[in-house]
Amino acid sequence: MRRTELFTKTSKTVPGDEVAKNAQLLIRAGFIYKEMAGVYAYLPLGKRVLDKIIQIIREEMDAVGGQEISLTALQQKDTWEASGRWSDDVMDVWFKTKLANGTELGLAPTHEEPLTRLMRTYISSYKDLPVYPYQFQIKFRNELRSKSGLMRGREFWMKDLYSFSRSQAEHEKYYSVMSNAYDRVFARLGIGDRTYKTFASGGSFSRYSHEFQTVSEAGEDTIYVHEAKKIAINEEVYTDEVLADLGVAREELKERKAIEVGNIFTLGTKFSDALGLHYTDEVGEQHAVYMGCYGIGPSRLMGVIAELFADDKGLVWPDNIAPFKVYLVNIGEQGTRMAETLYAALQSQGTAVLYDDRNERPGSKFADAELMGIPYRVTASDRLFGEQKYELTDRKNGAVTLLTADELLAKLR
Amino acid sequence: MRRTELFTKTSKTVPGDEVAKNAQLLIRAGFIYKEMAGVYAYLPLGKRVLDKIIQIIREEMDAVGGQEISLTALQQKDTWEASGRWSDDVMDVWFKTKLANGTELGLAPTHEEPLTRLMRTYISSYKDLPVYPYQFQIKFRNELRSKSGLMRGREFWMKDLYSFSRSQAEHEKYYSVMSNAYDRVFARLGIGDRTYKTFASGGSFSRYSHEFQTVSEAGEDTIYVHEAKKIAINEEVYTDEVLADLGVAREELKERKAIEVGNIFTLGTKFSDALGLHYTDEVGEQHAVYMGCYGIGPSRLMGVIAELFADDKGLVWPDNIAPFKVYLVNIGEQGTRMAETLYAALQSQGTAVLYDDRNERPGSKFADAELMGIPYRVTASDRLFGEQKYELTDRKNGAVTLLTADELLAKLR
Repeated sequence: MRRTELFTKTSKTVPGDEVAKNAQLLIRAGFIYKEMAGVYAYLPLGKRVLDKIIQIIREEMDAVGGQEISLTALQQKDTWEASGRWSDDVMDVWFKTKLANGTELGLAPTHEEPLTRLMRTYISSYKDLPVYPYQFQIKFRNELRSKSGLMRGREFWMKDLYSFSRSQAEHEKYYSVMSNAYDRVFARLGIGDRTYKTFASGGSFSRYSHEFQTVSEAGEDTIYVHEAKKIAINEEVYTDEVLADLGVAREELKERKAIEVGNIFTLGTKFSDALGLHYTDEVGEQHAVYMGCYGIGPSRLMGVIAELFADDKGLVWPDNIAPFKVYLVNIGEQGTRMAETLYAALQSQGTAVLYDDRNERPGSKFADAELMGIPYRVTASDRLFGEQKYELTDRKNGAVTLLTADELLAKLR
Repeated sequence: MRRTELFTKTSKTVPGDEVAKNAQLLIRAGFIYKEMAGVYAYLPLGKRVLDKIIQIIREEMDAVGGQEISLTALQQKDTWEASGRWSDDVMDVWFKTKLANGTELGLAPTHEEPLTRLMRTYISSYKDLPVYPYQFQIKFRNELRSKSGLMRGREFWMKDLYSFSRSQAEHEKYYSVMSNAYDRVFARLGIGDRTYKTFASGGSFSRYSHEFQTVSEAGEDTIYVHEAKKIAINEEVYTDEVLADLGVAREELKERKAIEVGNIFTLGTKFSDALGLHYTDEVGEQHAVYMGCYGIGPSRLMGVIAELFADDKGLVWPDNIAPFKVYLVNIGEQGTRMAETLYAALQSQGTAVLYDDRNERPGSKFADAELMGIPYRVTASDRLFGEQKYELTDRKNGAVTLLTADELLAKLR
């Protein structure tokens, strides 16, 4: 894409109403636009990053038997009354609304209830189990405060997968498969090394749930990290009893601020009991379906990654979720000719390139490349026209190399 | 995908609360689930169709300079008060809700106002124009009645593109480019021959707007079709004056029921005036940006296509939006071996195949293939094991051919 075609602009001004670094940078670089606190629009660059994060998660969910669906935001009262979660006293993040005829509706903050009800249509026998529907969907949560940019939204993207199993044993097997899938997601997103599977409080059906917590100074949670075992304990369950249960000692653990990027939870038969989701086994006996839920927030992840990798020059995207791989800059007349040739060649080999063809100072183009966090900047200038070389600058470490067109194309393929 | 892995089932029972054929069939075939009137969840098969429709539209929007973004559902009152559309008396399809602190919000039924406001950040000079942001987004419309299945939703998918131009002349040029892009979308979706660019009432800035109306008995609109000119006139502007203006005679036109699948509209400076979106021209003079909007409903299209092409056996999808291209059926032990081999071969060449490996009667599998509307059914049976041939059945016309594996693979590639 040519920069002259991209409708967004960068800004040097830090938005006065944002305290979170991720939102400040993403707004300055033209990735997102703040509609109101906790509610952001995605602009072309931001949409590309969000879509890439979603695609990585999708591939890993599909690889463990996930079937993609799309549930609705509008929710009926009776579905949630069945589980006791319609009341604002129980679920304090509801947005409620009304049909023209006065019927009260809610905007789904999560989807256990409607999906459990839906599955009654499709599950009746042990032969129908296990199944793993999931979705990418916009959730609505009426948070009292929302000051962390993309890290705590009132309207945000969520991947939620729900497992429907015959028994606790079958559930536990899948729970562990999903835990590994989560590890792969965070590794592919470049935050695997600082993301810990964290023991947190469970429910009626399991002692623990598990959060995936990414260590970050901007995190709102406190966790205790065991680096050697690559696990952590959320402060809410950081007790002698839990330490003993997990076989770790207090002195082996380090206190860290962290942000929850995913969670997996054993629901047991809480929702299947409440909404009447049963199956008949091989000998004709009826059982409640055993459930689990597994969440990841793609938009929150975009904020977390922006926040974690940024430096004093701006954003720094990992290659595989960057909006473009290459930021191409032309300097001078001969440089422009070289840039145009390379632009065509990069596009024809499928390398995503943003070509800054604007009539601007090189310094201003370089600054934009850095603020936007594009992994590789390529400069084509009059100065290197004689040797027919391009200057390649690595966003992560600033390393500069001079390469011919062929070398560049091979490297950026 | 194996049918034993797909969690949905088909049903012979017509849902009692649905009068629309599209909803009846899509629910029976397991494509969608009714959450409430006008609010449907997309199940795996339905999600695949919806995604394919969206992808076709996306390609055509990108081809005419569209830049994909994603705006928010939650809306602030002041943005819409500026244009006078906050009031329920003016915009009668609002869903309204409230923040925890009592601030009133709306759920966007369309996005002219927030996008116009957003663009103030990025448009200030003639150099910033023209631009064409668009999105696929869930719209919320509090319709009084919603009985047409996917054809009139309260929560539904919309593609909306907005053009921002320097002048009426620049706008009109793009308006015509977009009109051609719409023709390509509907042609690719297989409804080009029965979709008419229809003259409808305009606004303050243009005599007409244009609807794309697909002739269908299930349509809620009445149009007058001029087949030779491939245009139509909406009954709301079907006057002698308009006939004269368009140079057509009443006797050349045929009255038809139709459903609106897209519309393009000249907004002029209505919203840029109301929300203060201006640019400075080459000589330093300020002007309001000249706007247009261009909508297509992907979920409505799914309903329209379902409704139009269905026969007495069920759905009939065009190849390029079918959830799977092939429905593979195994009969007997040797047939199963042949089916397994072909399944692997189809998958490895990238042909989307749903393999009905269930332990069911062939007749029941055939009926499902037909109900789901998969373009090609392939049967591998003991009977044809000797000649190593497969039976290929075309969903559209029922034509049956016997083919070897190689011939099949080539045909279905």
